Amino acid sequence: MKDRVLIPDAEYGRRVQRAAKLAAEAGLDVLVANSNEADYANCRYFSGYWPLFEIGGVAIAPGGQAALMIGPESETYARDRSHIDNIHKLVEYRESADPAYPGVQVSGFSDVFASIGVTGPNRIGVAGYLVTTMPVYEGLRGAFPEAEIVNADNIMTSLRQIKSPAELACLREGFRISEAALDVVLDNIKAGMTELQAVGIIQKALYENGAEYESHPVYVLSAGSTAHAISRPTHRTLEPNDMVQLNLGGRVDGYSPSVGRPICLGKMTPRRRELVEFGLEAHHKTCGWMKAGVVASEVAKKYEELFRRRGYQDAFLYGPCHGLGMIEVEKPWMETVSDYPLAENMTFQVDTFLQDGDFGLRWENGVRVAANGVEMLSQSHMEIIELG
Amino acid sequence: MKDRVLIPDAEYGRRVQRAAKLAAEAGLDVLVANSNEADYANCRYFSGYWPLFEIGGVAIAPGGQAALMIGPESETYARDRSHIDNIHKLVEYRESADPAYPGVQVSGFSDVFASIGVTGPNRIGVAGYLVTTMPVYEGLRGAFPEAEIVNADNIMTSLRQIKSPAELACLREGFRISEAALDVVLDNIKAGMTELQAVGIIQKALYENGAEYESHPVYVLSAGSTAHAISRPTHRTLEPNDMVQLNLGGRVDGYSPSVGRPICLGKMTPRRRELVEFGLEAHHKTCGWMKAGVVASEVAKKYEELFRRRGYQDAFLYGPCHGLGMIEVEKPWMETVSDYPLAENMTFQVDTFLQDGDFGLRWENGVRVAANGVEMLSQSHMEIIELG
Repeated sequence: MKDRVLIPDAEYGRRVQRAAKLAAEAGLDVLVANSNEADYANCRYFSGYWPLFEIGGVAIAPGGQAALMIGPESETYARDRSHIDNIHKLVEYRESADPAYPGVQVSGFSDVFASIGVTGPNRIGVAGYLVTTMPVYEGLRGAFPEAEIVNADNIMTSLRQIKSPAELACLREGFRISEAALDVVLDNIKAGMTELQAVGIIQKALYENGAEYESHPVYVLSAGSTAHAISRPTHRTLEPNDMVQLNLGGRVDGYSPSVGRPICLGKMTPRRRELVEFGLEAHHKTCGWMKAGVVASEVAKKYEELFRRRGYQDAFLYGPCHGLGMIEVEKPWMETVSDYPLAENMTFQVDTFLQDGDFGLRWENGVRVAANGVEMLSQSHMEIIELG
Repeated sequence: MKDRVLIPDAEYGRRVQRAAKLAAEAGLDVLVANSNEADYANCRYFSGYWPLFEIGGVAIAPGGQAALMIGPESETYARDRSHIDNIHKLVEYRESADPAYPGVQVSGFSDVFASIGVTGPNRIGVAGYLVTTMPVYEGLRGAFPEAEIVNADNIMTSLRQIKSPAELACLREGFRISEAALDVVLDNIKAGMTELQAVGIIQKALYENGAEYESHPVYVLSAGSTAHAISRPTHRTLEPNDMVQLNLGGRVDGYSPSVGRPICLGKMTPRRRELVEFGLEAHHKTCGWMKAGVVASEVAKKYEELFRRRGYQDAFLYGPCHGLGMIEVEKPWMETVSDYPLAENMTFQVDTFLQDGDFGLRWENGVRVAANGVEMLSQSHMEIIELG
């Protein structure tokens, strides 16, 4: 068996050092990067630790020392998995079922910060601001009533948006697994099974081929559910000639790629086929517009203009791309207000979604931005898929 | 095919009315119950809507009106699934990848509250406090700078801890599915496959038998990982004579039961068998101590005393039970400080965990508290399991 693709030990330490430097430049006395079970990225990025039931965070001092903060029940698990040895249990990171933990010894934020050489911070940067909970905020505020608490998400974006060779290897492996599972579901999906039974087939294929988890809750969305930009599969039984939207991905050492294909369990109607074909064209055009140095908003504007010019503006909902990495949707997005230039080794999901009443479709693939274009990280079955 | 087990439409409306009454009694001008992707319970309890990528919440006025609050991307999905028709998109409930959404029309908390007849609230109750994020808090604070914002989790515990007949039916169906998947993995797990490949087998069986999702990330934990109270499976290849901890469950219309069994891929060593047998005895004894009217702390104290009396105090980590419902671990816990009396139709996971150095084991089943004891909701394979 070939070696498993993963992030090397040393890369975790380098990430902490880069974060410390950015924290120092931002005038922070400490950076607290938080995560939960669904968006575990910041915690895992620095430590390799991946919370469930409980939440997690990493504290980093400008001097380069780091601490992993976990809930009271995960110590054995965290010690086994974390690349940061300095681990603290805090009630602020407990699970949402809110146990009292009688007799359990825990740390406070003061203890954590002291362990990394930070006392009496004046300015605390909080990253993962959108997943930072009230108890964590109140814990920081209670421990340091005078400190300024600021949003430090831009530090994580700086760190995470350009991928290292090891990160790219994880994404490529994840796309290999995702495309293998796509092959399996295309061979096995049929009218008579439920959307959720098809999800089970995909899950088994993802794990069999080396995934550590699904990259996101798997989509097998049929009939009217295809019009949902975000959705969950149901117990609906698939019927002959149904349109079905598949989006699936296998996670590799924390990296979460996904592929999306619209398929038909029969022959597409002319109108649906027309939209599926226009989506495919828009998808290829989007990839063609991207290369290092192009300002992201220009791609988004060209994309909207294409929809308008071809008369499909009513089918436009959003797009054309979002950042790809540890989370299947992560910063930066590519919107008409996105004024950053694309840079080499940024990775995106090119996410071409059209909505037409109770029908929708999505072509989705990963790309790596290169000097003169993009490297497609997935591209199998980019064709009209009519089964059965 | 028999009818699918689910929560009837009318029950959602009754839940809102009961919450409104409790909010009024607590002197709240409005109740805001929040959820995220991992702990979706409060949002789904009232609306049936189950967020992913984004987060969600429900606002309830003491008069009984309700609004569902979603992120900007989920409107079509939410309108398809929500039992609450009054739906608002708020940027505070956006996904953690933090899009800017140029041109998208959204509501503020003032709009949401006005739509349920609440203007200028003095006292805002926030439930799901442990999953309420900084942007949601800041949105409320910004809209109502003078209002008192209080933790209202006790309202949700009052509502959710005693299960209705429909909730019990969902849990029973979930246990049926979980035990079916347990049969499948016991028939198929073997040395040579990885922990994660066994997870794939379980996933397929859960979905094939009618689950809508895993009740929690599936545990197939071998060798040293068995000692983790919380953990995630790995790419470790199972070996002959490994101890393996299985915990798995199938979710049914939002209800998340789980079964846990320690197994051996061969013959257990005498020491491990002794611990597995003591765990089984402690599990049965715990079930025997429970009935309506017993104070929860008494069960916890007897459990700890049993470990001490039998010389296994060093193997004690926590226990003996935690609440079961929409989330596989939910309030109330059963700890030595738990001063509430057990009541009929409370449901618990009896979670008997022992830790002995680098080995651990867990027997876990669901129970319903009855007048004179408990109803076991799962009980298959409660035996020494030595395979191969």
